[in-house]
Parts: sequence; structure tokens; C-alpha cells
Amino acid sequence: MRVCISADQVLNDFLAARSGVETSFNRVPPQAVKCGFGMQGVCCRLCSNGPCRITPKSPRGVCGASPDTMVARNFLRAVAAGAACYLHIVENAAVNLREIGRGNSQLPLKGTGLLNELADSLETGGRDRNEKAVNLAERVLADLYLPRNDKMRLVQKLAYGPRFELWRQGGLLPGGAKSEVFDALVKTSTNLSSDPVDMLLHSLRLGIATGLYGLAMTNKINDIIWGEPQIRTARAGFGVVDPDYVNIMITGHQQSLAGILQDALLSPEAADMARAAGAAGFRIIGSTCVGQDMQLRAAHCPEVFAGQTGNNFTTEALVATGAIDLVVSEFNCTLPGMETVCRQMLVPQICLDDVAKKQNAELLPFDIRETRAIAGKIMRGAADSFAARRKNVTVNVPSHGYDDVLTGLSEKTLKNFLGGSYKPLIDLIAAGSIKGIAAVVGCSNLTAGGHDIFTVGMTRELIKRDIIVLSAGCTSGALENVGLMSPAAAELAGESLKKVCLSLGIPPVLNFGPCLAIGRLEETAADIAAELGVDLPKLPLIISAPQWLEEQALADGAFGLALGLTLHLAIPPFITGSELVTGILTKGLENITGGRVIVDGDINSTVDRLEAVILDKRAGLGL
Amino acid sequence: MRVCISADQVLNDFLAARSGVETSFNRVPPQAVKCGFGMQGVCCRLCSNGPCRITPKSPRGVCGASPDTMVARNFLRAVAAGAACYLHIVENAAVNLREIGRGNSQLPLKGTGLLNELADSLETGGRDRNEKAVNLAERVLADLYLPRNDKMRLVQKLAYGPRFELWRQGGLLPGGAKSEVFDALVKTSTNLSSDPVDMLLHSLRLGIATGLYGLAMTNKINDIIWGEPQIRTARAGFGVVDPDYVNIMITGHQQSLAGILQDALLSPEAADMARAAGAAGFRIIGSTCVGQDMQLRAAHCPEVFAGQTGNNFTTEALVATGAIDLVVSEFNCTLPGMETVCRQMLVPQICLDDVAKKQNAELLPFDIRETRAIAGKIMRGAADSFAARRKNVTVNVPSHGYDDVLTGLSEKTLKNFLGGSYKPLIDLIAAGSIKGIAAVVGCSNLTAGGHDIFTVGMTRELIKRDIIVLSAGCTSGALENVGLMSPAAAELAGESLKKVCLSLGIPPVLNFGPCLAIGRLEETAADIAAELGVDLPKLPLIISAPQWLEEQALADGAFGLALGLTLHLAIPPFITGSELVTGILTKGLENITGGRVIVDGDINSTVDRLEAVILDKRAGLGL
Repeated sequence: MRVCISADQVLNDFLAARSGVETSFNRVPPQAVKCGFGMQGVCCRLCSNGPCRITPKSPRGVCGASPDTMVARNFLRAVAAGAACYLHIVENAAVNLREIGRGNSQLPLKGTGLLNELADSLETGGRDRNEKAVNLAERVLADLYLPRNDKMRLVQKLAYGPRFELWRQGGLLPGGAKSEVFDALVKTSTNLSSDPVDMLLHSLRLGIATGLYGLAMTNKINDIIWGEPQIRTARAGFGVVDPDYVNIMITGHQQSLAGILQDALLSPEAADMARAAGAAGFRIIGSTCVGQDMQLRAAHCPEVFAGQTGNNFTTEALVATGAIDLVVSEFNCTLPGMETVCRQMLVPQICLDDVAKKQNAELLPFDIRETRAIAGKIMRGAADSFAARRKNVTVNVPSHGYDDVLTGLSEKTLKNFLGGSYKPLIDLIAAGSIKGIAAVVGCSNLTAGGHDIFTVGMTRELIKRDIIVLSAGCTSGALENVGLMSPAAAELAGESLKKVCLSLGIPPVLNFGPCLAIGRLEETAADIAAELGVDLPKLPLIISAPQWLEEQALADGAFGLALGLTLHLAIPPFITGSELVTGILTKGLENITGGRVIVDGDINSTVDRLEAVILDKRAGLGL
Repeated sequence: MRVCISADQVLNDFLAARSGVETSFNRVPPQAVKCGFGMQGVCCRLCSNGPCRITPKSPRGVCGASPDTMVARNFLRAVAAGAACYLHIVENAAVNLREIGRGNSQLPLKGTGLLNELADSLETGGRDRNEKAVNLAERVLADLYLPRNDKMRLVQKLAYGPRFELWRQGGLLPGGAKSEVFDALVKTSTNLSSDPVDMLLHSLRLGIATGLYGLAMTNKINDIIWGEPQIRTARAGFGVVDPDYVNIMITGHQQSLAGILQDALLSPEAADMARAAGAAGFRIIGSTCVGQDMQLRAAHCPEVFAGQTGNNFTTEALVATGAIDLVVSEFNCTLPGMETVCRQMLVPQICLDDVAKKQNAELLPFDIRETRAIAGKIMRGAADSFAARRKNVTVNVPSHGYDDVLTGLSEKTLKNFLGGSYKPLIDLIAAGSIKGIAAVVGCSNLTAGGHDIFTVGMTRELIKRDIIVLSAGCTSGALENVGLMSPAAAELAGESLKKVCLSLGIPPVLNFGPCLAIGRLEETAADIAAELGVDLPKLPLIISAPQWLEEQALADGAFGLALGLTLHLAIPPFITGSELVTGILTKGLENITGGRVIVDGDINSTVDRLEAVILDKRAGLGL
């Protein structure tokens, strides 16, 4: 069977040359035969009368559940799990911010400017920066922990005004976020809810909680702690790895945890420890979204952050280079498959959060009061590993990646770059120099053509049609590793967009960073909409999560739908077994929030449809 | 294909005679071919690379997840959902108690004796009954809402001492229950935890939270609000339904919601309304666990509670009698299949809790301040339905059930019945008159031989061997409908047990009521253990949930395992695809908590093994 391929040719060649290492790419062919019931969402294994499957001869489960009920239950439970993941992240971030404010931690507050702004705009107040940190954190945590019948208090201030009104009128304002998740789990249990419509509306509430808290608020808190993003040029790809250093690879989504390494690795003790191990020093090797986050804020830790290597499905290959000495993971996307590669390459794993405990890893439970001690143990482990393993493994880092990827884009830096207002961008759109905006976000999977195949192919076609692309998530790792985030990519854009890029010195694909930055994209879009005086669905903007992988992507998607946006997916969620659910998500919802899903697995057809949506929205604005 | 059969012959005959009505029994044959991957827990559909399935040629998922990881994830997520269901129930009950205490409701506090006891024993205090209600409720709610790294405060007072110590030492004390559930959902997401052992230990924490709060505390709060159980003789079976009345069938698990009908139906307005509709009055028809709960406390509402009709899988048949005028459901187990039968029999459905919203039902969201108005709407709906539908449907209530089932057993009433101490029971056990105790609990399913087939068959065999049976859950509905809870069943017991039963005037199967009463069984067991001065695993006591159905049963089971008990299941959970997980649950766990699972689908072999366990424990006690 043919191994799965990537849009990244260097990666393909590297994996081909390391045939002794099994990665996810190798496991795609043996898992190629998929279960049709599971794919369509019409398999139910909630109870011991099952698993039940819908067929023409068994149109309902034993309990009487219809395909609509089964699909809606499976879908809502998946969205709830995805929402839970993001809400876990913001909870940890808020707890850290609170403890820093209380003086219980030596972690910094590098983004006090933003802290001051939020204390005003969210009216959380505080006399000094510590009190402001505590107040903001406590307000966030209070909202997360409200019961479901209490609506979260900060939503009105975090949401775009016209959206808030629509959600309020439509009963879509989320109650306490953790209870929304909890009750979704209850609702989707055996013989509880059978109402697909109620379950889909619940998904939208979870989407809103995910977006405003799990995404946007996490970014803000991380900006406050680790410093705000700054636009700069960086290195990306496996080439950032220097084998002379003790290389600590980080995976996950929580800079609030992994960030403790940043300053610790700069200490004189760190330098001594590295030297004693025979290394030139310590380096953090970015991967997955936490790497994107660190890249975004790397202006605040340029000495130790080597750069971003790639996305979820490049992690196994990265370990296979032999140049990684320790893996520190604090969340997904840390593939279970990496554990095998780590064993093979003699790389120990340390986990900082038990929700992401890997089977053979050491668990160092994160404790904000003990960050120095934890960082010290990680350094020690990495240095020991370097000293012990380097003579026993072959190191082979391919020449890979780009030295000039543009990074540091955010809702604020982009606006500042444009001179403090989105008017110049709006003018370019109005003039037709930029036809519209595509947010290409989310994961990478190995099923929509292969690794990043759809993401990269679609992005190339979008920019060719003068549609500027903003990226957040594993799509960012994909697009920077194939050069689309380097200024030279302007040459690949359509004539109008190319001119804009050349005049501004930017690539046609702008990197907002991790999937968490989908929250930044929403704020950017809301800012543009506010400048135009319209609601979000009016904008010539679409989202595509072409290669969505995880339940978290479904929660992000629910946010996009609640925002009223058109959302493209190259492969459908497991919903196609229900005409009702599929119909609501692809059509009916447009009457409720303005959002809808387009599922299209063909690149050209997709771009045709997305361009048509953009042209239609332009026409609606009189452009 | 042969329709599924029941241990209840009258039910079989009734269903055979009503061939125009499709029930779950009819849907078993077309769903008989099961998916082996799902059954074994080695199907993963968490991400869009899947569904992945474990086969010899594909030993891992695309991400690298091993069968152990897949199985543990699926299992933990199921336990978390089950725990969430029970925790939702106790949360609602506690909120109601708090609001009654605050004077925001006209609901009664019929069990102030217990309230006073708990204010002392749990040290929740309070100057008067209202303050005591508020304090207790707030302490429970505070525990539920703690973050996971904060251990729940009441656990030490609620748990049996030696168990608490063991849990403390083993890191098994649960943090805030809702966060334990929430984090289990996070943990079981794609590319997060891959550690089966950590996930199984998490399941035990969820089991403890379920047992002490979801089960035991719910019972206590309901006892405080609706009155404590009293031992009495009652009618059970479809025969409790009198077609001359407006019959409101209740399904669910929350007496704290459904109970609002009790006093309302006694009002003069209710009598007038029923008369105007042409009926003799209103009756509540008990079904599923909320009916068991109401039966248990029916001494406090004997006029309106007609009796308990059966368990989860008798509900469709009950509607098919034509004598039900309205279904009020507030939780599971309200089968989706009942909706079709309701349509056919012109029966409207009202739901009181959106987590259990049925597709075509009216949702009347429960509001403690509006209980009279909600009860009024339900009465109105039921009376209108009676008036409109009775001329259009055939009413056919079979002669079914028993008039002399013993009910009202609880951790307190049993002890009082024995004279205020468990010593008489212990003496009977020591003397060998009673060999041991089997708690036969949980659901009914349609796959372990058919409806209640295993439950009834095993119970008959257990009592024949002088093992007394205590029941809680849908097993209670099964066992009372076949006469095993009537005093005459003493004749079916072994010679020694028979003598005990005849001398005390009790049946050999004692009904503790709903599945929530598994909490009462634990307290009973702890009381007996305390009297003996031993820990729970030493007792000659086993649990069997022979026909477990739902995820809730898995959470109950996790509680039993945390208690150190031997737990029998006739069919395994979806875990057999992992030797590691299966090994831990059936063997390894014994070294941690003393508990273990026995899976056996043969009645005689099961009873042999359970008897051997009891004999072994007797020997351990020197008996």
C-alpha cells in the first residue's frame, strides 16, 4: 500500500529515507477501509443493547433512537469534548494569571499594556497590575464556573455588539461554560435528549463559549503573561534545529505551562548544565500550536526559542531526526505514535498536565508555585538525555523550511501595521485589489488528500484569485513550511494581490499562529465589520478548516457558525447519516445565525464556491 | 426473526397481542448483528482520520493509539457521562433544597428529622430547618463546583472511614465532581491522554463522586424534601393503572422535579378539573426509577401515587395499554421509542429538564419558584388529553403484577426493622441461616438473554442458595413484577433463608427502590461492616448488575469497585479489546481497592462463582 504523502516534499523525502521509523503516515493505508456507519454518525454505542447501527432494515436503534437523534448526540458530544479542551486551557491560563497577581509565582507579566486595556474595557478594574491580573482572572474563572442557568457575564463585552444581540434574542447566550459542557454530556447519554434541534443549538452555545473564552481570552491572558505578539521575520521548519544544542521539543496548546522554560533556560545554571553535558546550550524547539504561540511572541524570548518546526503530523518525523533530546508536552496534539518513535530514538517524555499524560512519560504536574523547580527538572532531564543518547543515535536534520516567514500577526499588530485602522485594508477590498479574505484554519489530517495537501492546494488557488489568506492552527505550520508565508510567495498571488503584497513587503498568507488565534481572527473580523458598520455575515470573508481533525475543530467550527460565517470543510463531520442535522448545518442555520457549512473535497470546486460567496457578499456591500 | 422476550410472561403475552405497536422488543432482532470492534472497544471515531479499528493488520490507530489507549479512553468517557448524569440529578436536588430553605418555593420539607441529623453529622449546622436546608445544599453545591485540584470537603464525612483512608493514600479522593467529569472528557480527546492506568484511576474517582453525591446525597435530599421511606406493602405492575382516572405516567430519575405533582393533584382544583374531563381523578403512574423513588416514599402521597408499573423496557408497553393520558419525563430512562408509541396512542409528552428533551415533546423548564404553575399546566394537559383521546383509543390494561410487594426499604428502615441494629442480620449470617448478601442492581437490557431474563433467573438461584437479595434500580421493577418481592416468594428460597423470611414476614428479595438506592446499599453495607469492625471487602457481599445498560451503570460500577466489592456483569462493557484494561478491572484492581469485575453470561456458573466469593469472605471472617 502507498504511504500517505505530504504537501511538503522535503518531509516526504525525509520519511522515505527513514523507513525504519513508523509514523502516522505509515498507518494510514492499513486504516484506509473506514466504517460507513461511523463515518455517517449512525453507529451508537452508548448502551449495552448496542452497538446499534442504522440500515434500511434497522432504521432505529433498539431504544428507538432515530438516525437524527444518534447523529445529533454524537455530534454534540464531540463538540462538547472539543469545547472542554479549549476551556481547560483558558482555565489553566486564568489560574496562572491570578496566582502571578497574588504574588505566588515568579512568572512575569510581560504584557501589562494589554492588562491595563482590559481592566478598562472589560471593567474588571484594579489599582495596580497585580490587582488587575487577579480581578481579570477571577472574572474569567467565575464565568467558567457558573451554573448553566446563569449566563456568563463577560460575553457582552467580549462579543461583537450585533452578534450579542442576535444570540440574546435566539437563546444562544452560554451559561457557565463548564456546565454547558457538562450538561451536553448528560444530554447526549442514553435515553436522555432525543431532540436534534435542541442539541445543535447547544452546540452553538458551546461554540460561543469556546470562541470568546477558550480562544480569545486564552490569547489575551497569554499576551499579558508572555508578552504581546510583534511582527517579525523568523525561521521555520526542521532547519531550526541545531544538533549542537540540547533540544527540548514542546508540544501542546498551553504556553501558560510550557512557557516556564523560556527564562529558566537563559539562566547561568542552564548554560553550565548544557556545557557540562557537552552542548552549546539549551533550545526550545517549537511544534504544534504551542510552538506557534511561542513563535508569535518570540520577540520576548529570541535567545532560547529556536523556531517553529511544523504541525501535528510532523512531530513524529521531528523526533526521528535524532536531534531532539526531550519532549515536553502539556496538551494535544501529542500523538500516541510519537511514543514509539521516542523509544526508538531514546528520547524521554515529560508531561505537565495529567489530561495529556502519555503512557510511558514522566508526569511533572504543573504547579505555578514551583515553576523553577519544574523547569529545573526538565533541564536536568534534557541535559542528561543529551549526554546519554547522542552517542547512540544517528542525527539527521534535513535542510528544510524558510528563514523569512512573517510572524507575529494579531488583531492588534495587523491593525497597527496598517496604520492604526483597518481602513486601508477596507479600501483595498473596496477597490478590488483584494477580493476578499479567507481564514484558513484548524488542523491537518491525513485523509483529505494527505498531509496538508488540501490546505496548501486550496491556499495557492485562493491567493491566485486575489483572496488574501489568514491562517491559524496547524494550517500555519503547513503553510510556512511550503514557503507561502515568506514574502517571495507574493509571486504566486493574483496580479492585484501580488501588487499589494509587494508594496507592503508581506506574503499573501498571514500567520496568526496557533488554532487559539482563531479568536484573533474573529476580533479582526469584528473590527473590520465595526469599521464598515455591518454585522459579520456581511463581510466578504469565509472560513475554511479544510483538514479539520479533532473535536476541538468542531467546537471552533461551531463558533464560526454562531458568528454567522460560511465555513468550508473538505471532509464532513460524522453527520451525513442524518438529513435533518446535515440540512440544518448546511442550510437551515443560515436563517438563525447567518452561518452555514459547505462540504467540498475538491480544491477547484471549493475555491469556486468560496469565491462565489465572497463575490456575493461584496455585492451585498455594493462592491 | 424471533422477538425479544421478557422474564415477565404477562408482558410477553400483552406485547404479542398488540402487534401493531412497535417497541424495543421488536427492534432487537434487526439490531442483532453487532459490530465486533464496537463491542470490544477498539473502534475510535474521535478524529477525522478515523474511524480507526484495531485488527491484526492495523494494530494501532492512524495517530498511533494502541488498543489499550482506545479502550481506556472509550471507557473513561462512558463512565464520565454516567457520572455526569447522576451529578446533574444531585445538583438539581440540592438547588431545590436550597431554594426551599430560602423561602423561594412552596415545596415541603417532609423529612426534617433527617435534615437535623445531617446538620449534626455533616456539621453543616443551621439555626432552624430553613437555614439547615440552605447550609446543607450550599455545601453540596460547593463541592460539586470545586476545581479538580480541590478535594471535595464532605467526602470524609460521607465515606466509610477505612475506605476514606485507602482512597486518600491511593490518590483516589475526587476533586470537584463536575471538574472531574469535565477533565475526563478532555483527557479522552484525541492526542491527549494515552495512559490506560491513569484513565482507570480517574474512573474510580468518578465512581466515588457518583456514589457519595450522585446517589447517596440525592437520596438524602429527596428524603428531606419528600419524606423518608417507610416500609409498607404496595401494588406493583400494570394492574395499578385504573382507566377511570386521568393517568399521568412519570419517567426519569428526579423526584425533586416530578414530585411537584404530588400535592398539586390533591387540590380541589384538580378534582374539579378531572371531573370536568369525565374522570374519577388524577393518578401518578410510576415507571422507571422515579417511580421506584415515589413508591419508596409513597407513604407521604398514598392518594395520588397509583403504584409502580415496571422498569425502563416496560414503558413502551405501558403507553400501549391506552390508559396513559400524558407522559411527564424529567430524565432517562425515557426511551426514544416511546415517542412513536405516544403518537400512536395520542399521548402528549411533557419534559421538565432540557437535558432530557424529547423530539416532539413540550418542554416546560423546571423552575422551583413556579412549581404550582408548572404542575397546573401538566394537569391541564393531562385532563385535556383524557377528554380528547379516550374515545379514540382502545384501552386494554392487562391483569398484571402483585398487590403485596414490600417497599420502603432503606439504610434506615431496614435497620429499624431489625430493632435498631444490624446485629440480628449479622447473627443470621454468622449462624449460616443467611449465607450472604447479593446486591442485584442496575438496569435491564434486552441482550443478556432478553428483558430481565438474567436478573430474574440469577435472583431465583441466589435465594435458593440462601443468599438474600437486595435490589436497587430497574432490577427492582423486574423482580417485583414476577413476584419475588412478595412475601410468598419465601417459598422459593432455600430452607434456611425461607425460615428467616417466614419468621419476619418478608420476601427473600428486598426492594431498596431506584438505582439511586445503590447509595443506600452502600450505607447499609458500611453499617454492617462497622458493626463487625471490618472494611467493606471483608463482607460476604457481592454486587451484580447483571443486565447493566447505560453509562450510568458503569459509573455505579466504578463506585462498587472503589468500595472494594466484587461486581458481576452478565455482559462485559466495551473493554475486551484491551488485555491491559480487562486485566486491571478483573484482577489487578483487587490489589488497589479490593474490588474486581466478574463477567459471566451463564446464570448457574455466575451463581457458583458468586457463592464461592461469599463463602471465601465468610471463611475470611472465620465463619
